[in-house]
Amino acid sequence: LHSGAFDEIRRMLRGMSPAEVARLIESTPLRARNLLWQLIDKEDEGEVLQYVNEELAAHFLRHRNTEDIVSLVEGFDTDDFADLLQELPKTVMRQVLDSLDDQNRYRIETILGYPEDTAGGLMDTDIITIRPDISLDVVLRYLRRHESLPDTTDNLHVVNRTGQFVGILPLTKLLIKDPGMSVREAMNTDAKAIPASTPAREVAQTFEREDLVTAPVVDDNGVLLGRITIDDVVDVILEGADHSLMSMAGMDEDEDTFAPVWKTTRRRAVWLGINLLTAFLASYMIGLFEGTLEKVVALAVLMPIVASMGGIAGNQTLTLVIRGMALGHVGSANVRWLISKEMAVGFLNGILWSAVVGTIATLWFNDIMLGAVLATAMIINLLIAAMAGASLPMLLDKMGIDPALSGGVILTTVTDVVGFCSFLGLATLYYT
Amino acid sequence: LHSGAFDEIRRMLRGMSPAEVARLIESTPLRARNLLWQLIDKEDEGEVLQYVNEELAAHFLRHRNTEDIVSLVEGFDTDDFADLLQELPKTVMRQVLDSLDDQNRYRIETILGYPEDTAGGLMDTDIITIRPDISLDVVLRYLRRHESLPDTTDNLHVVNRTGQFVGILPLTKLLIKDPGMSVREAMNTDAKAIPASTPAREVAQTFEREDLVTAPVVDDNGVLLGRITIDDVVDVILEGADHSLMSMAGMDEDEDTFAPVWKTTRRRAVWLGINLLTAFLASYMIGLFEGTLEKVVALAVLMPIVASMGGIAGNQTLTLVIRGMALGHVGSANVRWLISKEMAVGFLNGILWSAVVGTIATLWFNDIMLGAVLATAMIINLLIAAMAGASLPMLLDKMGIDPALSGGVILTTVTDVVGFCSFLGLATLYYT
Repeated sequence: LHSGAFDEIRRMLRGMSPAEVARLIESTPLRARNLLWQLIDKEDEGEVLQYVNEELAAHFLRHRNTEDIVSLVEGFDTDDFADLLQELPKTVMRQVLDSLDDQNRYRIETILGYPEDTAGGLMDTDIITIRPDISLDVVLRYLRRHESLPDTTDNLHVVNRTGQFVGILPLTKLLIKDPGMSVREAMNTDAKAIPASTPAREVAQTFEREDLVTAPVVDDNGVLLGRITIDDVVDVILEGADHSLMSMAGMDEDEDTFAPVWKTTRRRAVWLGINLLTAFLASYMIGLFEGTLEKVVALAVLMPIVASMGGIAGNQTLTLVIRGMALGHVGSANVRWLISKEMAVGFLNGILWSAVVGTIATLWFNDIMLGAVLATAMIINLLIAAMAGASLPMLLDKMGIDPALSGGVILTTVTDVVGFCSFLGLATLYYT
Repeated sequence: LHSGAFDEIRRMLRGMSPAEVARLIESTPLRARNLLWQLIDKEDEGEVLQYVNEELAAHFLRHRNTEDIVSLVEGFDTDDFADLLQELPKTVMRQVLDSLDDQNRYRIETILGYPEDTAGGLMDTDIITIRPDISLDVVLRYLRRHESLPDTTDNLHVVNRTGQFVGILPLTKLLIKDPGMSVREAMNTDAKAIPASTPAREVAQTFEREDLVTAPVVDDNGVLLGRITIDDVVDVILEGADHSLMSMAGMDEDEDTFAPVWKTTRRRAVWLGINLLTAFLASYMIGLFEGTLEKVVALAVLMPIVASMGGIAGNQTLTLVIRGMALGHVGSANVRWLISKEMAVGFLNGILWSAVVGTIATLWFNDIMLGAVLATAMIINLLIAAMAGASLPMLLDKMGIDPALSGGVILTTVTDVVGFCSFLGLATLYYT
């Protein structure tokens, strides 16, 4: 690229919003990313950085000095700042922390004290607190002394002398209530604070259920630490959804579509290797019936049908149950009911489609027993597929294994083995 | 169940929050749902109804009279009310609308005028508007005349004489700016209003990108119609994620885990039927090589490996690209790059795993050519799988077909056909 082209890209980047620039960078391969980053105007770097994912932001900052980093992340919310810091090398992280003033360092360190996927890791420490014994009028005058209020401020947080959370005062209440009223009289005391150790997934469920915009976060002693805002919760929800989708294909939510070929190859190789084991197991099972296959070659032609239908049906049940567990609809209380229901569905669909399959096979190879064997094997496999699909997620979850990641492989192993064995096994009984 | 048990359930329901009761109802089969609904105290019905999904809410309301329905949905946001109305029979919907006062009917009808999955269908018409030429002090006094402000009020909407949207006044600004200032001086004019015809998915992307809590909605003439709140956007996001996950297993996001067996069987039957066609196509291809299979039965033992590895690898690429498209990272500008990248990854993994597979097959059947044929077929299938997985989603999308729903079936058809044909075809060339 000649320098004129660079100027043109620079002009184009200047015409885009920081969010658009960030999306463009995330949509290009590594080399182009570095180039684009260099072409951004210095004064826009900080804003763009807020919109790219943390891993990439850390990559861009890797070779900057401490002062540069601190000035670039000035506009970040404290929680995003903390997340980014965790992606940087330990020594850089320490240097950045040391260069902050006491109050900011204390705030960031509080967040860093909690795992990223808990309420404490999600919270933002930039909040406005007031005391319960003052009047609304005093609150109004206090707010007017501010140059600006933190983004997404919908509530003021009421704390007692020891910093413990006692309630929230929504701005909407502050605006309509009599200014002579005290905060204690006007505040909502039924607003529940979220303990800092609460897992992010539970936080998201609370926000969804109660249609919250922000929620206060407290430590074990009820002391107010910060608040969680809906934008971070939306990120948690999106990551959760991404996780389910990607796991089912053996990838994780950090998978970068534009990662270099080598990196991607290595990541994918593992998953293919695991599935190869499954495939070999199926081949081994088929190998056991080599004698039968030699006699009736039509069996080889038809055998993928049984395995594939079992896989498809089982995968539907598996997906449904994994989703149900994520929504909190499926648990140990109703899983038994669900297994019988899914088996009933599998049986009925087995009857229906095995009749079709059996008829076609009978006509194709002019062998009614072949049709009967195929139909019977398919009913068996659909029943087993339903049972496995419905019971595996709970079972794996109890064993601490992610059902979205491993459920599919295990299910396919089951439906392949049962599919091939039942079909070839029944055929062996009849033909030998 | 004897009546003592009913009393116990009633007591239990009374101890739960409306959201919890709703989740319990959604987690049980149909018969139990109706029973639980009957055991809820009359005065709690309206609140529980707000938390169950619309289809179920409509089911519970089906046999109620108009007055009952109107009083039950009193607490609903206007957008939720409109959504629920659309689930009711047309005549009931008309009766309910007719029984509303003019203002409310007008509001609901405005929402009903837009499809459910657009900004207009998502919006809520319960908003506070102010004029630009008054002072903040007047606004403060105006608000104080309200008993309460709508939930999630973070901004006041500024409109001109003809009702056109001109800007927003955040409550945070109203609280800190000099009360003598005019609304025009204090308001944000860079806040963009969302046209009512914008698709819900785009609305969600705007909210995510700009970390919005609410956004104004306008008609084609810029007249303010209402606002969208983040809780409805979260629902859109969750439904979208649910849609991708469920579609990939051939179901849709409305699939009810606890639907009756018959209903589920019918829904699933269609998907199984489509996949059966795919399976028969694969069988037909295998049938073409019956002669070769008769000679070398080891081919029947090994052939599922080629097809299955292609399916797994292709599915990873497919999932990645579908996700990338949803995030706006993958488009026509970079799909060519992505296809070559994925094919490179497929080729490298093909080399790696075909070496493993080829060696095992050679040792197993003591036939080096069998190993070579298997290895070659696998490389071919992984290349084709990568190409199909990367190009299908864009192709289907252009044809107006949902890639998440049909991509997997088409991909499997491709990888099955290519897998079986390349393996058995190469074997035929060598062995005959």
